Amino acid sequence: MQQQISVITLGVADLARSARFYQDGFGWAPVFQNEEIVFYQMNGVILGTFLKDSLAADMNRPGFSGPAAFALAHNVATAEPVAPVIDALIAAGGRLLQPASAPPHGGLRGYVADPDDHAWEIAFMPGITIAEDGRVSFDL
Amino acid sequence: MQQQISVITLGVADLARSARFYQDGFGWAPVFQNEEIVFYQMNGVILGTFLKDSLAADMNRPGFSGPAAFALAHNVATAEPVAPVIDALIAAGGRLLQPASAPPHGGLRGYVADPDDHAWEIAFMPGITIAEDGRVSFDL
Repeated sequence: MQQQISVITLGVADLARSARFYQDGFGWAPVFQNEEIVFYQMNGVILGTFLKDSLAADMNRPGFSGPAAFALAHNVATAEPVAPVIDALIAAGGRLLQPASAPPHGGLRGYVADPDDHAWEIAFMPGITIAEDGRVSFDL
Repeated sequence: MQQQISVITLGVADLARSARFYQDGFGWAPVFQNEEIVFYQMNGVILGTFLKDSLAADMNRPGFSGPAAFALAHNVATAEPVAPVIDALIAAGGRLLQPASAPPHGGLRGYVADPDDHAWEIAFMPGITIAEDGRVSFDL
């Protein structure tokens, strides 16, 4: 089967609060929005922020809890932007989990929770290549 | 800022159980693995399955709960493969959440929880294009 993820959907309580984090914090532009969902065209995948109740109904799974055992990462090409990006996300409603620091596997990274408690890692990681179009791959 | 997600990391309790779901269910090949993480090179992003305790330590967030308000989607090009893919995932340790059925926005989709309760939507969705290399984009 094709090694393909098409959409990453995050359940959110308040679309406007979430939009502030993604649009003012990351500076990303939406590609589609209506009264229950906002989509962002990413690097070959789509990111969706979907009202929690609508997501629960769509997947037939009421009663979400959290925080969840998962993280999304946004990588940068050098170590310098890691802390400023984290600061921008906090200014847009994020919450610091892990300050920018060096993990055992190298590089530099920190974590910020979005307003719905979804974790984002902001990372510089030697061994991961980011192409000009945003595509990410391992150097192995 | 580049509209880029580099890594999707799922916290897992048992790497071998998780590998069975992703490698036997989806048929995906790992690109890297050690005793605490398995990475899959996807369509311009990387999927990681990381021991929950290691993920919690890395992000400085102990005490995950679940199920979480998020979903990952794998899209197929026509409606026919949706149900067979769901069946293959269940055979590899997944749990059916939503059988293949038509959502209000069109197409056909179902949801399966992986062995750690992370939800995967298997979908045929008119309006989303999947390129030969797996890149996904909106037709707008």
